[in-house]
Amino acid sequence: MSITHAQAQAVLAAAEAAADAIGVPMNIAVLDAGVHLKAFTRMDGALLGSIDIALGKAKTAALFGFNTEVIGEFSKPGGTSPGLEQTNGGLVVFAGGVPLRDGAGGLVGAVGVSGGSVAQDAQVAQAAAAALQPQA
Amino acid sequence: MSITHAQAQAVLAAAEAAADAIGVPMNIAVLDAGVHLKAFTRMDGALLGSIDIALGKAKTAALFGFNTEVIGEFSKPGGTSPGLEQTNGGLVVFAGGVPLRDGAGGLVGAVGVSGGSVAQDAQVAQAAAAALQPQA
Amino acid sequence: MSITHAQAQAVLAAAEAAADAIGVPMNIAVLDAGVHLKAFTRMDGALLGSIDIALGKAKTAALFGFNTEVIGEFSKPGGTSPGLEQTNGGLVVFAGGVPLRDGAGGLVGAVGVSGGSVAQDAQVAQAAAAALQPQA
Amino acid sequence: MSITHAQAQAVLAAAEAAADAIGVPMNIAVLDAGVHLKAFTRMDGALLGSIDIALGKAKTAALFGFNTEVIGEFSKPGGTSPGLEQTNGGLVVFAGGVPLRDGAGGLVGAVGVSGGSVAQDAQVAQAAAAALQPQA
Repeated sequence: MSITHAQAQAVLAAAEAAADAIGVPMNIAVLDAGVHLKAFTRMDGALLGSIDIALGKAKTAALFGFNTEVIGEFSKPGGTSPGLEQTNGGLVVFAGGVPLRDGAGGLVGAVGVSGGSVAQDAQVAQAAAAALQPQA
Repeated sequence: MSITHAQAQAVLAAAEAAADAIGVPMNIAVLDAGVHLKAFTRMDGALLGSIDIALGKAKTAALFGFNTEVIGEFSKPGGTSPGLEQTNGGLVVFAGGVPLRDGAGGLVGAVGVSGGSVAQDAQVAQAAAAALQPQA
Repeated sequence: MSITHAQAQAVLAAAEAAADAIGVPMNIAVLDAGVHLKAFTRMDGALLGSIDIALGKAKTAALFGFNTEVIGEFSKPGGTSPGLEQTNGGLVVFAGGVPLRDGAGGLVGAVGVSGGSVAQDAQVAQAAAAALQPQA
Repeated sequence: MSITHAQAQAVLAAAEAAADAIGVPMNIAVLDAGVHLKAFTRMDGALLGSIDIALGKAKTAALFGFNTEVIGEFSKPGGTSPGLEQTNGGLVVFAGGVPLRDGAGGLVGAVGVSGGSVAQDAQVAQAAAAALQPQA
């Protein structure tokens, strides 16, 4: 049960729309439940340094099924798991990576967004993940 | 002068159409002229081992402005540059990576395709690159 | 649809029985369909240098859904994909890695075996993979 | 004098029983006294990101013969050995890795457990290590 091509495209489209709405070009990475790259796009003008960050955020969220900033809480000095960010070849532990769950709540992958402030990245990633949820 | 988001999406769409036409799901990577990831998609059912190969083919073609199989000729024993494939952190030197040129002939990036036979990969990559050329 | 714990244990048990039958202690690695470690065992006396090889064979077979020696044919000089063995962080392209398919034929992972001659490794890996097939 | 296959299986079985008792699927790695992988299992549903952590905890405990959290005390700022966690290719320095000693007290390897809270991981690792001790 992993993300489909159609789902990944819906996630990218939602992320791009959210990024356009705030006028910040983003790098957006979508990984499947096995932590393999499924789709990626870099909007025109997005920072080159953010490509690796978007990929790292998606990897971190897919590996653990948590938002990246939650892993950041675990891994900080004084947290439950200091140094956790050094495992798995290096994690990215600030906001902008969000697990992707299908309508039934199953983990199907993760999205990572980077290019703006951390708050902007998180906002766009949340909008992207919402694309797989049933609309109210 | 590097590939735009719109151009990259046109390249992906052309690659997917060509892959669908032969019934082989592909991994398709688009890099810009600076050899940075611009867009990627994995069609449903495409081999996991081909993700890295698609990325490697696009990198090889973008770095040198040649089709990957041409770099293969240079790098083979008896070629002009034996061992070339070990440079740049490792190249992929069989067919399926093609430089992307705009209508005026300028190098704007490269596409790498992997998932089928080498001949199928090359066919899909050529179709993808043609998407940026003026139609006759 | 990936390998379960019970399936992985059945694969290990079949591999150990086949290794015992020929009197050669083996390293046996089982990966899931997402190419992540599911189970591993090193029989007493098995070579230390074969741990990494067993893991590499399983990775190679899981990434491509082919026996490792088939990937070896593709990647050799004069093959369709010379240098293929350098992709994906390095592949192991001699026999002893076999895809794992469930009764319905779906790819659920791979097994890699190392510790004896290549022919012995291949024999044990085939016996291991057969554990997931319906008995005649 | 290193861990045997039979001992490693006893350690895995004890860990799985302890994990089942608290209802948390775990990744469990057993290394020998030479810090080489001896056995591993991932219970169904255990986090993918915890595979590397279980391996890292077992490595850390096997390298030094201490529980991982003790290495954490040494390595933290103000500890006796700040930066110790960066040695040996990276250590994991929170609880869940425990040295394995035979009945006579000799170090025969280590077990690393990851998948739950740090307290849960530590509890399961202690239960696993106890499997090699004479029963009262």
